[in-house]
Amino acid sequence: MLNRALDAVFAPRRVALVGASDRAGSVGKLLWDNLSGFPGEVVPVCPNRTVGGRAAYQDLRSVPGEIDLVVVATPADSVPGVIEAAADKGVPAAVVLSAGFAEIGGDGVRLQEKVRAAARAGGVRVVGPNCFGVQNADLPLNASIAAGTPPGGGGVSLVTQSGSYGMAVHMLATDEAMRFAKVYAAGNKADLTDAEVLAYLREDPATTVIALLLESITDPRAFFAEARRATAEKPVIAVVGGRTGAGRRAAVSHTAALAADDDILDAALRDSGVVRVRTGLEMLDVARALAEQPTPRGRRVGIITNSGGTGVELADLLADEGLDVPELSPALRSRLSELLPPYGSPRNPVDITPAWRLFATGYPGAIDLLARSGEVDVVVPVLLQRSASLEVASAVRDAVKRLRADNVPVPVYACFVAPRSADDVADVLHQSGVPCLPWPDRTARAIGAAVRYGMFEPKPSSPHEPSDLLGPVDDPGDPIVARDLLEYAGIPVVPTVRCESADEVVAAAARLPGPVVLKVAHPDLTHKSDVGGVRVGLVGEQRIRAAAGELLALAEGASVLVQSKMDGVETVVGGFRDPSFGPVVMVGMGGVLVEVLRDVRFALAPLDHAQARAMLEELRGAAVLSGVRGALPVDRDALADVVVSVGDLLAGSDRIAELDLNPVLAGPDGCVCVDWRILTRGADTTEKYGPAMPKN
Amino acid sequence: MLNRALDAVFAPRRVALVGASDRAGSVGKLLWDNLSGFPGEVVPVCPNRTVGGRAAYQDLRSVPGEIDLVVVATPADSVPGVIEAAADKGVPAAVVLSAGFAEIGGDGVRLQEKVRAAARAGGVRVVGPNCFGVQNADLPLNASIAAGTPPGGGGVSLVTQSGSYGMAVHMLATDEAMRFAKVYAAGNKADLTDAEVLAYLREDPATTVIALLLESITDPRAFFAEARRATAEKPVIAVVGGRTGAGRRAAVSHTAALAADDDILDAALRDSGVVRVRTGLEMLDVARALAEQPTPRGRRVGIITNSGGTGVELADLLADEGLDVPELSPALRSRLSELLPPYGSPRNPVDITPAWRLFATGYPGAIDLLARSGEVDVVVPVLLQRSASLEVASAVRDAVKRLRADNVPVPVYACFVAPRSADDVADVLHQSGVPCLPWPDRTARAIGAAVRYGMFEPKPSSPHEPSDLLGPVDDPGDPIVARDLLEYAGIPVVPTVRCESADEVVAAAARLPGPVVLKVAHPDLTHKSDVGGVRVGLVGEQRIRAAAGELLALAEGASVLVQSKMDGVETVVGGFRDPSFGPVVMVGMGGVLVEVLRDVRFALAPLDHAQARAMLEELRGAAVLSGVRGALPVDRDALADVVVSVGDLLAGSDRIAELDLNPVLAGPDGCVCVDWRILTRGADTTEKYGPAMPKN
Repeated sequence: MLNRALDAVFAPRRVALVGASDRAGSVGKLLWDNLSGFPGEVVPVCPNRTVGGRAAYQDLRSVPGEIDLVVVATPADSVPGVIEAAADKGVPAAVVLSAGFAEIGGDGVRLQEKVRAAARAGGVRVVGPNCFGVQNADLPLNASIAAGTPPGGGGVSLVTQSGSYGMAVHMLATDEAMRFAKVYAAGNKADLTDAEVLAYLREDPATTVIALLLESITDPRAFFAEARRATAEKPVIAVVGGRTGAGRRAAVSHTAALAADDDILDAALRDSGVVRVRTGLEMLDVARALAEQPTPRGRRVGIITNSGGTGVELADLLADEGLDVPELSPALRSRLSELLPPYGSPRNPVDITPAWRLFATGYPGAIDLLARSGEVDVVVPVLLQRSASLEVASAVRDAVKRLRADNVPVPVYACFVAPRSADDVADVLHQSGVPCLPWPDRTARAIGAAVRYGMFEPKPSSPHEPSDLLGPVDDPGDPIVARDLLEYAGIPVVPTVRCESADEVVAAAARLPGPVVLKVAHPDLTHKSDVGGVRVGLVGEQRIRAAAGELLALAEGASVLVQSKMDGVETVVGGFRDPSFGPVVMVGMGGVLVEVLRDVRFALAPLDHAQARAMLEELRGAAVLSGVRGALPVDRDALADVVVSVGDLLAGSDRIAELDLNPVLAGPDGCVCVDWRILTRGADTTEKYGPAMPKN
Repeated sequence: MLNRALDAVFAPRRVALVGASDRAGSVGKLLWDNLSGFPGEVVPVCPNRTVGGRAAYQDLRSVPGEIDLVVVATPADSVPGVIEAAADKGVPAAVVLSAGFAEIGGDGVRLQEKVRAAARAGGVRVVGPNCFGVQNADLPLNASIAAGTPPGGGGVSLVTQSGSYGMAVHMLATDEAMRFAKVYAAGNKADLTDAEVLAYLREDPATTVIALLLESITDPRAFFAEARRATAEKPVIAVVGGRTGAGRRAAVSHTAALAADDDILDAALRDSGVVRVRTGLEMLDVARALAEQPTPRGRRVGIITNSGGTGVELADLLADEGLDVPELSPALRSRLSELLPPYGSPRNPVDITPAWRLFATGYPGAIDLLARSGEVDVVVPVLLQRSASLEVASAVRDAVKRLRADNVPVPVYACFVAPRSADDVADVLHQSGVPCLPWPDRTARAIGAAVRYGMFEPKPSSPHEPSDLLGPVDDPGDPIVARDLLEYAGIPVVPTVRCESADEVVAAAARLPGPVVLKVAHPDLTHKSDVGGVRVGLVGEQRIRAAAGELLALAEGASVLVQSKMDGVETVVGGFRDPSFGPVVMVGMGGVLVEVLRDVRFALAPLDHAQARAMLEELRGAAVLSGVRGALPVDRDALADVVVSVGDLLAGSDRIAELDLNPVLAGPDGCVCVDWRILTRGADTTEKYGPAMPKN
């Protein structure tokens, strides 16, 4: 069911423009002009008598009849009043372009809070403030400060927090015949959430590809749940800015957005099937590629070039994206040879060489042979200098048309390197729906992202509802209570006995097979190793008794935990409650890999076994788990189960703030946790959430 | 002293064109036309009576008078004869554009060998064959198949193995006013080496930046020695293609080039100060940036934008390149604020926001303030959509002119995002020497590479001449001979005694302090661990005697090495003799880091202490050497000394093929090698060179 407010935003019948103006160069005039193509009525609201020859109203309340959408471009301090007026009139939605809100801090934050309060009180849903506006290219509706109205008929819908990429829509529509369905500039996101917009675009039949350019994500848990649904139906391509420190600071100064921890974000995006790219331009390139051509079904790329050097460069760059430029079969090579000069190469990259006269037959012929061969998943003709001619481009266009007519499911993307004077050649491709990507680097990146989408296998949404295993009065800060909780959650824990005296320790050790480990237990001694509170591999009553005595003397009221000494590959499993992402789990390689290389992976909890297994595969030290130098592989299913259980504990029990199992020792026949720490959300811990590295 | 042959190539007085033609569309005609601007005489040689109205000669030998350069565009099989004729006439140099040589394999390889033999026999130096040609834009000389002759006056000289990047010269000269000094297309490199061309361009006063686009490097040792000299004088920017498997195969099919192992190549390029980039376009971008603006002296970038989103994106991308977008001082922020609207941001990125009327003063004003502040090393105005206007571009140009007039050493690069209709705005910048880079990604990459050049500190060339430490009859396959060799080379080795009986082992162990290690020694048992031939940490006569007996029984004639058990961080040091790079050394972290993550670094030998220290810093596990979790840092100088000594052994002793010290245990007070293996170049080992992972 479509969101009624977003339906009013994108498909209003009657629009009021508050702040309409006739003054050249003003935003009110620009909006008035941009709205001139709207098929319904646009009512100007402003102090003037008329705007563009139409009678204007001084107050929104005095406009007769129903209004579906209010577009607001008046000074910031007037906006709360405008929203109140819209509420009084029963208008379901407002797009606020005005700036001077949270992005400037201080008073602006308070003013934005007023806008939100007025909107919530009056049932008006708000886009913005401080936004570029919205467009529905098919209606058309252009309620934005774009330089003009783009033509409709495209499948890409863009959600952007950057006005400059809103501007780019018009530029690409004009210069490169790129077509969009809808454009939504989120601005400061005072009200409508990213998840709501994503859900709307998922259901919107005009939208075939969703492109997101975000500096923050409102309500990440709702967003990722919705993203999982959306990516099962259509591609979602995202740039999330402020990845780095400097970027983050700039994000704050720009839209008062709080950038999320990038590792968690990255894991959550990947897990939900969103294809993340680094730049807005990459986003637009891959969105176009997916909107105009079939989705690639594999990693194998066939290249056709007239320059060996550019073929090598493109092959290198495709390999950087994880793609293959495979050897072709002898049969295919022999058919390709018929299209080439004697000194051409039928290997991949297929090289026509500078045999100019053969370009107009060689390019389309090789495209056809490669696409129908079953040996590649993507075909890239490199149109370079002399092959970037109208004759060759037209022949490429026709070859692709034939492939589409025959439902050959292999996309064709052109890599284009030519002077300005060949812009008209590029236009032939742009207008025929063959993505025309300048230079090998941009080409490789777009193909890499398109293949990432094509190779993603949607998973069922949120796996299960974990229950709360933590009793209301249990204190998991106590190591034995914590151990019982872990065991109750199904996590294997090393046999552990708490002893209050050296005699008890000796007796407990005698009941355990092999050498033992002694650890001090005291609420104040959280970093046991640092105070000499851990003794490993002790044998013999005398040494055990001596060590027990030393540990008990470390602090008043200390006790000693006695454990069997275990073997296995050191891993760490943990989790924490992120202020915006909620429960997050982490798994990593122990020892030097986590200490020095921070070899860890994150996921939102709860998660299922397959996701946990995938996290293990993505570790840089994954090979250690599958057995190096003759070692047996460890039981990765058992380790994945621990990760799932940690996720369930966090997701089920609100009181748990942080949870570290470090190390979990993994072996061929299972794994076991030998040290653990659970922090609850108390007065002194609530501010401590964050993906801090676990310490022993 | 300039290379006489290359002087004839780039600055001939009289040229003969063999294969000249009047036939439209032929290469002979294209060359004739391109040579028309040459101020000296061009003599046509071909079967026709005349070419372009000039009398032609049927044979080079019959041309009267001296010829400095022969340009050859006749079929491949005629080329050896042409070279012989050139030799007979005493012509010092020939540029062979003809194809059909080594790049097609088989007969082509043999034909190229004939060309080389004729050239060597007759004293003719050859460019190509199978090349795009050469240009000296200042003369002008255009002996290439470019689409036209580029204007002179630029400082960038390009050496390219890809004709398409030769073509790009003309395209960038026409579209973007980029100026080149010389263009040299190396083709199949039958004769003249990369080192010779590099030396020529280093000495060429017209060349201020050297750009190399190579698919192979001829005689890498000579090349890197020359590169070290060149980068001390001017920037050298390089793309070396065929980085990946697919790329490599394409390289073979194109120019029959044998791609070198990329890790060694990368280390050698970096060490010699060559800035390596990934694509030809990046190479041209950074070459232009360094030719037209001062060299950046640090990593701090100041950004001026009119879109917060694009500012965030650029900041993220600059951080990916290792650059900073630093906080600005309150004083500077306050001065910047005077240029901005109230809701603008004087933080970095400085955001003018869409305050159109302030663009023409804000951009140049902020450029000036930032460049003179001492707080940034690079200034990047983002000219985006509405700020990409003639008015703003002219103001930026004038601001940069003032900085240059005042010798402010801070470069300014424009990031440009605008439609085709703003091409004339870009032209204002192109023509004034302000690099104008489209989109944030290309901008960030060019700046990153320029800063890498600016931050490189040239080192003295080749450190020393190691002497041969290996006696002519010594067999370093014997572990004790090898140990003595290592110790003679100054490498600390664990005390080691060879014993032939269990009694001897027990006696030797009694003379060593603490637990001992026993290792079997036998020529057939090269992988000692795999056959159970290593016993670690033995104490007590009985256990030692039993272990010794087992090891002696492993093979007929086996002996046992007795060593003290040592502690320390596991590292590996090794080296080998590469067929093209010669002696190469390697250092890496031991244990899981080398096994799983291949955490190793290479360098050409011999090397000096500073280079070896730098290799250690570049290891991903470098933090392990500087002490993690409270451990003391290891003695990195001692470890670096081992690396230098291994390099000297390899460089000094021709007979050593491979050398593995694995592990070398490093501690706070030095390091010690506890296992080693040296392979000599014998009948069965000469084919075994290669950076194989050392095994115990």
